Amino acid sequence: MTKVLILGGGGMVGQKLAHHLVAHGLNGDADLSITLHDIAFPPNGAKANMRLGSVADAGVVEALAQERFDVIFHLASIVSGQAETDFDLGWNVNMHPTWRLLEGLRAQHEATGGAYVPRIVFTSSIAVFGGPYPDKIGDEFLTAPQTSYGAQKAICEAMISDFSRKGFVDGLSLRLPTICVRPGKANLAASSFFSGIIREPLNGMEAILPVPDTVRHWHASPRSAVGFLTHAAGLDTDLLQGRRALNLPGVSCTVAEQIEALRSIAGQGPVDLIKPQADAAIAKIVDGWPRNFDPQRAIALGFQSEPDFDSIIHVYMDDDLPKG
Amino acid sequence: MTKVLILGGGGMVGQKLAHHLVAHGLNGDADLSITLHDIAFPPNGAKANMRLGSVADAGVVEALAQERFDVIFHLASIVSGQAETDFDLGWNVNMHPTWRLLEGLRAQHEATGGAYVPRIVFTSSIAVFGGPYPDKIGDEFLTAPQTSYGAQKAICEAMISDFSRKGFVDGLSLRLPTICVRPGKANLAASSFFSGIIREPLNGMEAILPVPDTVRHWHASPRSAVGFLTHAAGLDTDLLQGRRALNLPGVSCTVAEQIEALRSIAGQGPVDLIKPQADAAIAKIVDGWPRNFDPQRAIALGFQSEPDFDSIIHVYMDDDLPKG
Repeated sequence: MTKVLILGGGGMVGQKLAHHLVAHGLNGDADLSITLHDIAFPPNGAKANMRLGSVADAGVVEALAQERFDVIFHLASIVSGQAETDFDLGWNVNMHPTWRLLEGLRAQHEATGGAYVPRIVFTSSIAVFGGPYPDKIGDEFLTAPQTSYGAQKAICEAMISDFSRKGFVDGLSLRLPTICVRPGKANLAASSFFSGIIREPLNGMEAILPVPDTVRHWHASPRSAVGFLTHAAGLDTDLLQGRRALNLPGVSCTVAEQIEALRSIAGQGPVDLIKPQADAAIAKIVDGWPRNFDPQRAIALGFQSEPDFDSIIHVYMDDDLPKG
Repeated sequence: MTKVLILGGGGMVGQKLAHHLVAHGLNGDADLSITLHDIAFPPNGAKANMRLGSVADAGVVEALAQERFDVIFHLASIVSGQAETDFDLGWNVNMHPTWRLLEGLRAQHEATGGAYVPRIVFTSSIAVFGGPYPDKIGDEFLTAPQTSYGAQKAICEAMISDFSRKGFVDGLSLRLPTICVRPGKANLAASSFFSGIIREPLNGMEAILPVPDTVRHWHASPRSAVGFLTHAAGLDTDLLQGRRALNLPGVSCTVAEQIEALRSIAGQGPVDLIKPQADAAIAKIVDGWPRNFDPQRAIALGFQSEPDFDSIIHVYMDDDLPKG
């Protein structure tokens, strides 16, 4: 029996991951005990042990650590826009619980005489980077976050790397591309519109485009996100050679190219539902984000994404678009 | 009156800085109130307000923050070797107090309606980097620390950058080269021998060399360290364009080149006092450290170091070698 915990298991990616684990197991291992932890869960979500609570509350991650999960997917996070407007909340959710979790896991490691060394897969973000950028960001480019969210992610990466180097845990951090097309409603992430301009029109609804269509960004589908996470859970971390934060593969395209892909798949009707409406606050955040990567290490390690934005739209239509 | 605080003001660099401020003021400002904070002070040290205490203790940095210093030099740190052997102590001294200090300063910022924005100059380290390295580390090279000390420094950098970006403080982080030649006794830093093999022989004493003489490393004198710190205290941080951690200039040379410089200045006698005695633990730590840099940004911003290791030895002889 492999004990799996998904922190942030009520969120979109957490639910996708949980559904995948229920249906397919984890890298061939079907004998799983799956626990999801979050502040809320969707109705009719993935079938697993559900625990309600906030990682920010005292004692919560400490108690979870005592259960000695074999694999911990740490997805719990306040999104970028919210961390930017609510400074305290951002640090209290995105940074401090990771420290307490690591300390809790280290205590279990020591209580077992070193036998317990959980795998941690942490969802970091390309928001750890800050401009100016090269045309393609390579695997040795500096982290210089220009949002609190990015700073919090970079700090968690460093903590997880050091606890792993010492052998207390065996963790790695995945700098996820923007996940697109997100199903469901828009959220408070500054990146929310990248999904909205595809999802809303495909559902016959208007979508606001708050930035110029020349904006270039870096995307991967929710299906790829699940693939990244499960691949990371099974990876031989010796191959990381001490660099435990990875830039992942994705699709680089402009908003105009996103819209062209939508037109080629769904026609002009949906495209006409996209309404440009400039939002300076969102434009400022997005302007500081990376646009393209050359993620050679992750590709060599077997991480895979879609080849183009058309494929990303098709994943949404296959997996999430209401049928009929 | 400019209120200056030196955290870690009892240490070698802290004392050098304090002596400089007492004698020369800070960038032309002679109207200083200088407060030093540390767990211990040398006898007959720099004349300033001395406060005994540990930044790791509850309430200490919070209380200091309430004094609204204009300039805070944050040098307080457990050295690399000690942070590696005592994991808790390293994080408790090198990371958590920086967070509490920043939160305390932010509270003062808010209490003054945003008027109070202290300058913070934080001594980070080239230990934020981890191999493999290019021949010269450029200003955009990733941080991938391979020691807890390096991880703690990288995390503090990210915190200071984000609090600064939000306007709560105005900070920058200086990735100091190894400071050499340190006066006084050897310390627990893994880098201690780089100074020892010059200092002990010049004082007629034997020195242990724990690594092969092919080891290349990155050095600057204590005098340069003081110059870096005071220059940083007066720098227009807008020039940093959001990248508030700087690689500094220094001298790259091998241990063999250090020894040759010693021979050329002091003759064969002192060189014969250097005794090779391999230490695998030190060799392992040092092996993961950077060897050379191309610090274009810091040079363009006016930071200066010695041109060669001969000059570094002369600084020691001028400033610290007991006369006669």
